[in-house]
Amino acid sequence: MENLLTLAAQIAEIGSLRYTPAGIPVLDVVLKHESWQQENGQQCLVKFEMPAKIIGEEAVQWQHRKNIMVEVSGFLAQRSKRFPRPILRIQNIQEYKG
Amino acid sequence: MENLLTLAAQIAEIGSLRYTPAGIPVLDVVLKHESWQQENGQQCLVKFEMPAKIIGEEAVQWQHRKNIMVEVSGFLAQRSKRFPRPILRIQNIQEYKG
Repeated sequence: MENLLTLAAQIAEIGSLRYTPAGIPVLDVVLKHESWQQENGQQCLVKFEMPAKIIGEEAVQWQHRKNIMVEVSGFLAQRSKRFPRPILRIQNIQEYKG
Repeated sequence: MENLLTLAAQIAEIGSLRYTPAGIPVLDVVLKHESWQQENGQQCLVKFEMPAKIIGEEAVQWQHRKNIMVEVSGFLAQRSKRFPRPILRIQNIQEYKG
């Protein structure tokens, strides 16, 4: 079942690095996206914030890189059982070179 | 600036067909997604709901198709100026054949 988001965005917020009970590093971030998109023949300005999570070794590498522009891809998933609105679970992240 | 979501999901809710001031049909829907995803070598069950919008002729065609499984793609955008959390603006929609 397809579930893939690719997004260029700025890392607007970074939480403290934490570890799962199994010892896997996790970093909670907020991504800020702004772009012009084409819809039904019209340009529209898109601007939103998306909570996201980096899991594994990359969580350690990105913990101090606030404000960097990145290209990410991953899948959407519920934040938790109580909050069913999706956040992005990042599977690939790299600096955005424009 | 990249901003592309592809998702297989069920149309769980459909609002009433409405029209923009310019006369373009708009349909608000809620997509329900459930799948297993691989993360850091582990399977995890993903389950969430995503508000989405269909704009243009396809809004008319899909207005009575509740509960259908679909494959959609589009871009994320703020719901409104006051609610910056993203919804999906659907640009392609077709029935999901599995």
